[in-house]
Formats: sequence, C-alpha cells, structure tokens
Amino acid sequence: MLKTGTKIIAVGRNYAAHAKELGNAVPKEPVLFLKPTSSYLENGGTIEIPHPLQSLDHEVELAVVIARKARDVPLTTAMDYVAGYALALDMTAREIQASAKSAGLPWTVAKGQDTFTPISSVLSMSMVPNPDNLELWLKVDGDFRQKGSTKDMIFKIPYLISHISSIMTLFEGDVILTGTPQGVGPVKVGQKITAGITGLLDVHFKVGKRPRPESC
Amino acid sequence: MLKTGTKIIAVGRNYAAHAKELGNAVPKEPVLFLKPTSSYLENGGTIEIPHPLQSLDHEVELAVVIARKARDVPLTTAMDYVAGYALALDMTAREIQASAKSAGLPWTVAKGQDTFTPISSVLSMSMVPNPDNLELWLKVDGDFRQKGSTKDMIFKIPYLISHISSIMTLFEGDVILTGTPQGVGPVKVGQKITAGITGLLDVHFKVGKRPRPESC
Ligand SMILES: [Mg+2]
Ligand SMILES: [Mg+2]
Ligand SMILES: [Mg+2]
Repeated sequence: MLKTGTKIIAVGRNYAAHAKELGNAVPKEPVLFLKPTSSYLENGGTIEIPHPLQSLDHEVELAVVIARKARDVPLTTAMDYVAGYALALDMTAREIQASAKSAGLPWTVAKGQDTFTPISSVLSMSMVPNPDNLELWLKVDGDFRQKGSTKDMIFKIPYLISHISSIMTLFEGDVILTGTPQGVGPVKVGQKITAGITGLLDVHFKVGKRPRPESC
Repeated sequence: MLKTGTKIIAVGRNYAAHAKELGNAVPKEPVLFLKPTSSYLENGGTIEIPHPLQSLDHEVELAVVIARKARDVPLTTAMDYVAGYALALDMTAREIQASAKSAGLPWTVAKGQDTFTPISSVLSMSMVPNPDNLELWLKVDGDFRQKGSTKDMIFKIPYLISHISSIMTLFEGDVILTGTPQGVGPVKVGQKITAGITGLLDVHFKVGKRPRPESC
C-alpha cells in the first residue's frame, strides 16, 4: 500500500501543546510540508543520523493512508478516502530546521533524508473504529517521552483530507502525517525507540550513524 | 518516464541574477524543496490560478530526469544517472511564498498545487550533448520575459545530483528542477505562456482560473 504512494504530506503544529513547546503559535490553517517516500523506514530498521549531526528529534504521529484519488473532497465524505492508518515517526534534524526557519527556507533537508520516516505496517479501517481517540506513545531506551491522544489534534482527519485535497490531488497510497503531540526530543546513536498506538500496534527502531559513502 | 517518478526536487536561487531580483543572497549550498508529482501538467494544458489569487509567477527551468537509483553518487559518475532532460515551469504563488518565508514556514502550498509544474516531454541524453550550455526562454502573450543560459547556473548538474543523492535516494523518473534565470513575473487568467530550449523544443500553456468544486 505504502509502495503505491508518491507523496507524504505532513502537518506541523497540529497539537496545541506541541506548538507551544517549540515556541510556535497555534496555526489558523494547517502547516503543510512534503516528505519524500524515499524517507520511509520499515519497522525494525535503523534511523540514520547524518554527519555532522549528533541527534535527531523524534515526533510520533498517526499516519493516514489514502485509498484512492481524492480531489476537492468535501468534509462529509472525506473518510471514504481513507484506506487505513499507520504509526510513523517524523524524524527531524532540529538544528537544520531552526536555521531554515530563521532564513525563510524550506524544511526539506531537515525532514526529508533517507530513514527520516520510520513507519509501521498499515492497519485497515475496520481495525481502527475511532481514529479520533487513539493513544500514541513513544519511548527512548524504555522511558516514556511522548504520550498523547489524537483527540487533541487541532485539525481532525476529515478536515485535513478535505483541505489538502483542495490544494493537491491525493492518490492511492499517499500518506498524511497528522502532527505530533508534545514531548519531542533528541535521540542519539545507540539509542532505541519504541512507539505504538495503545492496544493496536507497536514498532521499534534503532538509531545509528549514517555510513559515510566510500567515495568521500 | 515522468510517470515512474515519485518526487520532484527543486533548486532555488541557482542563478545569481535571479537570486538578486528577489532580494535574496546567493546561496552557499543549494536551496532544496519538494514539489509533488501531482503538480505536473502536460504540454498544452491549462495552469490553474487558485482562488483568491490573481496571478502566479512563472519560473522557466531545465528539468533533469533521473535514470535509476542514485545514492551517494560521486561527482565523477553523476551524469551516468541522467535519463534525459525536459523543460519545466516552477509555477509559484509568490504572495503565499512571501508570507511563508517571513513566518519561517514551508513553501509547499506556494509551489505544490495541481498544475504548478507544467513540463515538456523528455529529451534523451543523445539529443542534448551539452546540458551546461542551453538557452532557456519564456514568453507571455508573445513577449519575452525570461531568457537565460544554463551556463549561468551556480550549482551545475553533476553537483546537484551528487549533493541531492547524499541527502535522499533518487529513483528512476525522479526529477530535479535546476532553478530559474532572471525575469520571473506574474501571469494572469487568459494569458498564454510559451517557453522552450532554443533549438530543441518548445511548449505552450494557457492560464486559467481554478474551477471551484461543486460542493463549495
Ligand atoms: Mg513527493
Ligand atoms: Mg511532525
Ligand atoms: Mg524555481
């Protein structure tokens, strides 16, 4: 399903408490950015910290997987375009993002590198009767760092699908990352991340250094 | 070829004269951002200006089409990963981009909407013996607005492939938009854009209003 998709549209600042922890205003409309599908990492894989960074920030997020072509979808039928859900991490090079933000530049290098979107397998709709009341959690080396409920999302799933589909056509397998609850923070080489949707699934990832290419 | 691809990586400010005309510094490393492949528009199509905008800016650019998986490609072999070239327009909602820039937010909505990447058919490598000396031009209603040579690109094609492939894996059909020469400016509903690579190809696009969805 994810292999069919051609884009990941991520929503920033979709939980008020997280917007606050980074010193950002709560947005009037969703903050949107793209991640490439080349950044996916399957469950069990190793998140790679690129040289010369010492850490990446974890952001645990509910991923909405699109079922079919969606363009100008009204709120009332938006949920008909959902194929399922997954748990994803929106890994972020926070220092790179901070300097991009202050220079008015895109977040692509901060958010789009290989292994920066660890993601679970896809849960079908029937396994997730109420996506607006899921507990997302994330631990680093066994300690809780993030725990939040999708009920605290500022912009809910139908609104996100309707809004995004008014800007760009969504296709089967495209993914919307719905934003992260509070508690984001750095992970370093050698640490282990576990994360999950309570009662539904969990995933685990190692954190390593990105290997230097032989040619350099 | 373009239908195989899953991403468009665009380079900003890659011609010194264009960086200057928008009041930007010439960058020390390439400014990168993503456009979704859902923004492609085939030759002859209509560029849609979304409500409530009155215009979009045209940016004529050389598109480099990737031939096969490329990761950490050294400069010396970078050209082996090129399948061909196309002419593309990086249509930009300049007011949206300007407010995104001043708020430190991504350029996705300014750059990523449907029809915002009009593109020609793909020219094979053999048809383009010297991609570093191509004249790109663009006319609005028959008047020249942009004319520039790829020899004035700050970061050349092998560097871009090597650099981008050190950040994210490129796959067959992925496209690099290499930046625009000076002369960008607005187009309005009813205008016609013609553009080309001198001696190789030309394209034409209409400019229209984006139809409002029936449900609104
Ligand atoms: Mg993409
Ligand atoms: Mg995020
Ligand atoms: Mg451009």
